[in-house]
Amino acid sequence: MKPTHIEHIGIAVKSLETAIPVYEKLFGLSCYAIEEVAEQKVKTAFFKVGQTKIELLESTDPEGPIGKFLEKKGEGVHHIAFAVDGLAETLTEMDAAGVKLVDKTPRKGAEGLNIAFIHPKETIGVLTELCEKPE
Amino acid sequence: MKPTHIEHIGIAVKSLETAIPVYEKLFGLSCYAIEEVAEQKVKTAFFKVGQTKIELLESTDPEGPIGKFLEKKGEGVHHIAFAVDGLAETLTEMDAAGVKLVDKTPRKGAEGLNIAFIHPKETIGVLTELCEKPE
Repeated sequence: MKPTHIEHIGIAVKSLETAIPVYEKLFGLSCYAIEEVAEQKVKTAFFKVGQTKIELLESTDPEGPIGKFLEKKGEGVHHIAFAVDGLAETLTEMDAAGVKLVDKTPRKGAEGLNIAFIHPKETIGVLTELCEKPE
Repeated sequence: MKPTHIEHIGIAVKSLETAIPVYEKLFGLSCYAIEEVAEQKVKTAFFKVGQTKIELLESTDPEGPIGKFLEKKGEGVHHIAFAVDGLAETLTEMDAAGVKLVDKTPRKGAEGLNIAFIHPKETIGVLTELCEKPE
């Protein structure tokens, strides 16, 4: 695989209501969408910076992945997502090469993207997602 | 201010020797430079992904900032850097607006960039750097 760019940076925050004004006032970014991803138990706020999105992630359930992350590590970067072409083929190749994957086939993520997570044991402390725009 | 793109993502790792092959083999990126920044007590490896660089940061001194981060939080994203135009003016404006800054004026960072850090209390769990290419 060869990622084309950083698609987004996912940042866990306790409260979107507190965090959105920081990104708007301090960094001059515009929140262009807020989306709830029920399956992931998060509410997400999106900002665009060049090729990359900042996704602020507020937990909607302490037992969800962001809820647990906040409990364990506090607020901060939760994951990085690379944009790739040919996500399904990439995952098949990684799986064949013995790379541990959370998702062996693409699933739907925020904004309708096809996404998959690599198992964190493979990526040295940084939870890493791969994303592809659907056809 | 209005950042133009994510200039880099700084990731603290215990060992560049272990981490570089992961970024090369797993993600298909090329390490194009390794640089020691003595003042920051780090050795850095650089990869380019679209507009953004991945900077892997290995500590050269347990008492340095990356050494302390690794001790406290383990491997993971250490900071995010926004590229901005007019860094000195941006810092002056932020300071006047009461924003706490680590660096009130630009200093030299890796790759000869002018850089400054915002105080982490301002940015909700994400240490944030501003960067500008020198004239």
